Amino acid sequence: MANDLAEAGARRKRSGGRAGNAARRGTAVMEQMPWRIPLNHDRPTEPLPPEGVEAIHDGAMRILEEIGIEFLNEEALGLFREAGCRVEGTNVRMGRDWVMEMVRRAPHEFTITPRNPDRTLPIGGKAILFGNVSSPPNYWDMETGRKVPGTRAHCANLFRLTQHFNCIHFAGGYPVEPVDIHASVRHLDVLFDKLMITDKVAHAYALGKERIEDAMEMVRIAGNLSEEEFRATPRMYTNINSTSPLKHDQPMIDGCLRMIRRGQAVVVTPFTLAGAMAPVTMAGAVALSIAEALSAIALFQWVAPGCPCVIGTFTSNVDMKSGAPAFGTPEYMRATQMTGQMARFYGLPMRASGVCAANVPDGQAMWETSNSLWSAVQSGTNMVYHAAGWLEGGLIASPEKFVMDCEVLQMIQRYMEPAVWDTGPDSIALEAIREVGAGGHYFGIPHTQDRYATAFYQPIVSDWRNYEAWEIAGGVWTQERAHRLFKEIVGSFEEPPMDAGAREALADFVARRKREGGAPTDF
Amino acid sequence: MANDLAEAGARRKRSGGRAGNAARRGTAVMEQMPWRIPLNHDRPTEPLPPEGVEAIHDGAMRILEEIGIEFLNEEALGLFREAGCRVEGTNVRMGRDWVMEMVRRAPHEFTITPRNPDRTLPIGGKAILFGNVSSPPNYWDMETGRKVPGTRAHCANLFRLTQHFNCIHFAGGYPVEPVDIHASVRHLDVLFDKLMITDKVAHAYALGKERIEDAMEMVRIAGNLSEEEFRATPRMYTNINSTSPLKHDQPMIDGCLRMIRRGQAVVVTPFTLAGAMAPVTMAGAVALSIAEALSAIALFQWVAPGCPCVIGTFTSNVDMKSGAPAFGTPEYMRATQMTGQMARFYGLPMRASGVCAANVPDGQAMWETSNSLWSAVQSGTNMVYHAAGWLEGGLIASPEKFVMDCEVLQMIQRYMEPAVWDTGPDSIALEAIREVGAGGHYFGIPHTQDRYATAFYQPIVSDWRNYEAWEIAGGVWTQERAHRLFKEIVGSFEEPPMDAGAREALADFVARRKREGGAPTDF
Repeated sequence: MANDLAEAGARRKRSGGRAGNAARRGTAVMEQMPWRIPLNHDRPTEPLPPEGVEAIHDGAMRILEEIGIEFLNEEALGLFREAGCRVEGTNVRMGRDWVMEMVRRAPHEFTITPRNPDRTLPIGGKAILFGNVSSPPNYWDMETGRKVPGTRAHCANLFRLTQHFNCIHFAGGYPVEPVDIHASVRHLDVLFDKLMITDKVAHAYALGKERIEDAMEMVRIAGNLSEEEFRATPRMYTNINSTSPLKHDQPMIDGCLRMIRRGQAVVVTPFTLAGAMAPVTMAGAVALSIAEALSAIALFQWVAPGCPCVIGTFTSNVDMKSGAPAFGTPEYMRATQMTGQMARFYGLPMRASGVCAANVPDGQAMWETSNSLWSAVQSGTNMVYHAAGWLEGGLIASPEKFVMDCEVLQMIQRYMEPAVWDTGPDSIALEAIREVGAGGHYFGIPHTQDRYATAFYQPIVSDWRNYEAWEIAGGVWTQERAHRLFKEIVGSFEEPPMDAGAREALADFVARRKREGGAPTDF
Repeated sequence: MANDLAEAGARRKRSGGRAGNAARRGTAVMEQMPWRIPLNHDRPTEPLPPEGVEAIHDGAMRILEEIGIEFLNEEALGLFREAGCRVEGTNVRMGRDWVMEMVRRAPHEFTITPRNPDRTLPIGGKAILFGNVSSPPNYWDMETGRKVPGTRAHCANLFRLTQHFNCIHFAGGYPVEPVDIHASVRHLDVLFDKLMITDKVAHAYALGKERIEDAMEMVRIAGNLSEEEFRATPRMYTNINSTSPLKHDQPMIDGCLRMIRRGQAVVVTPFTLAGAMAPVTMAGAVALSIAEALSAIALFQWVAPGCPCVIGTFTSNVDMKSGAPAFGTPEYMRATQMTGQMARFYGLPMRASGVCAANVPDGQAMWETSNSLWSAVQSGTNMVYHAAGWLEGGLIASPEKFVMDCEVLQMIQRYMEPAVWDTGPDSIALEAIREVGAGGHYFGIPHTQDRYATAFYQPIVSDWRNYEAWEIAGGVWTQERAHRLFKEIVGSFEEPPMDAGAREALADFVARRKREGGAPTDF
């Protein structure tokens, strides 16, 4: 059948469609969906009635008014004082009217423009965007067969996957921490690799003023931008976590203040693990998360009214047997949906994650990750962190998992395409049904042939052959197929084009900053 | 931490909770959720606007009015003639007014009562119920390591899993076809096994009058019911497929007519595979499915007004490369959601499935199955067939996959529990947040200790330990853990209690029907 259809397709000289694109590209390792900004038109799943939203809002506001948040950042304490908040030591209490006034200053939507403007991302609204796994200290692949500390080579390969897959929209933090590079200069080498290997929106860690300033400078240089151009619109973003419960530490707030003052975007993501750093009840953990996030966002809006902010969720629960964090649980899904309701209540773009507790890329890894990804869809999430490559609660990055996750992400993208549920007369296909009649088949008719190349999602790593064909081909399980694809992708990878002058300037900057000693490592 | 909490729990002498139950049971192989009827309060995901629903309805009605459905069943043709439909040869055309009048006769909700009345199921409304995989000809497990024809022993073990897991609400068809039993008496042996091993709602195949009549008689005997009691309320169900496109065959319609005349439930599930037996467009495949299903349901309502009917969906798409059916695809998900909208439009309970194309219980199996199960949730499905144990597009039954799927089903059940998103003052937990303050932790406080035993979903086969603990324990991947659990469950399985007289009567019935030769096997 496939051959008949392919021939029929060829006869019709269809120039569009994925098959046509693949033929033109010639060397494609595999078919994948083109780059696109998926729009999520599904009505979000909303467990909370309006009074539930009010209850969480009131809880968060009472935390800010009555209990307060610790800010271990002198500058922030001064700014809060200036804004009229009640500052005692490092504890800051703030009234709900002021908090809401500040939050209302934040834009509902904004864009981030990387060095390749074709990769500009809209943040907020209906857009749902995916980023690679960020920050695991360890690496695991099928070849290594065990958990090992991350290296620059691992990290670069994961950047290649980040760039290769069109369903990955933004480059998160280090996809694995390269512990073979000294901490003082690690940010320079990794960001250099990232800016060479990818042309997608880049993240920078808020880990001290030197690192964040270096990162901004490198993104500016890579984009061939003047300072004015850099500041004119967001070019990059950072993501900070609070130290739950109820605390923001020095470098994260400092990094954000530096970012917003140069017009860059910040994502504030408390990590409220119910039963450990947050109440055992999900509504309590969400209320705590909201309070922590809004306290920082209010500060940023005080400093730079209208600066681009995203509210993140990383609320999950511990395994009460082992104390380890669990991910992709029913409680995680509902917390994400609840946070989605709160983000819409506050008019803020939202970040969630693609996460699991599994240690290897097996069945558990995929049901947990599927649960977390679908809850991101259901909650109206705009940025999905860790969407590809995450294992062991974020302690391991795996290229096989990356490839497998990209299959799920592509399916989510395809799921968003209105063509799938079109009900125009050609889609209802009454004449085709009449033509084929009872007991016939639809393989050869024009209605099928005209559409077959783009009618259905085509997988990258799924094997849809029957058991016998699959067995003859070696009986390869998914994780091994993913491994082979990973090797093919990195083996044939070509870096995206980059202006030679910008590249040289970037290399010079890195060399100079290394000579200067990089960033201090005493914190 | 776990020990501290366990001790704290013991001190508080909590009698409720899963931990308490487990302790009392003593011999439990594993913790699982108790039997319950999950209610799905989520607003369904509805890709179609109202005019899209109208377009599919109009398409289905025009198929019935203009093209017609083949009924290869003489009795049905006579009944359609009697009802005033236009019958030409085996082709039946029916007006939309009549079809809708008949469909309106069907109940929105009904119950099915098995031999153990504690397992009575509400079909329709908000209830979402799960059944085991049904009808694969082949079996695969980790020990066998390859695809083999199903046997009575395999089938019985899969019934044991069906009975063991509280998240499995109904016993579907044969969980694997036992080809070691002659086809003439297979239904007698397998239904005997099913009625001994499980006390849950049972299915019977509509494969000729002898088989379906035997099945009804056996369910009646097993339940110790008089004919009057058997007929008084549904005690069992059958599920039929049309022969898409546009055809209903003899034994399936015959079986349904026999079932509804004795007050039993029927599920009508066309298998419209887009691009093969149905239009390549999903709306066309759904319209065809709706037309085929409603034509049979209308007939049944003509014969037995108000008889319990369920509309099923099995709309998916082929892999355009291999021609094999694909499952759990984005197109599958949207077709299921669309059919959910149509089922609500017609006021009929709905059936969907938990399905995948994968050949082994690996990552692909679980993302495809997760996609299909979540689309069942999103579409407001009432009965989820094949929810545990399905591989290779339904050609393989696997006990490992069964156990793995039950983890996902339990998570869906937990996801449905309103306690997860409760926002009462105790859940917002302001006082606990105040008590713990900044930088503290929630492990030991009363708010946590009072709730930890039931606060979070506890897994059955997921391993939530960190990599090192998992590695020391053998580094066992999910499918192998599932295999071990399968062996433990069947090794310690105890049949549910059954009245000795009923058991003897059932054995006598089987013996007599075998002496009589069972069912003819020439069709």
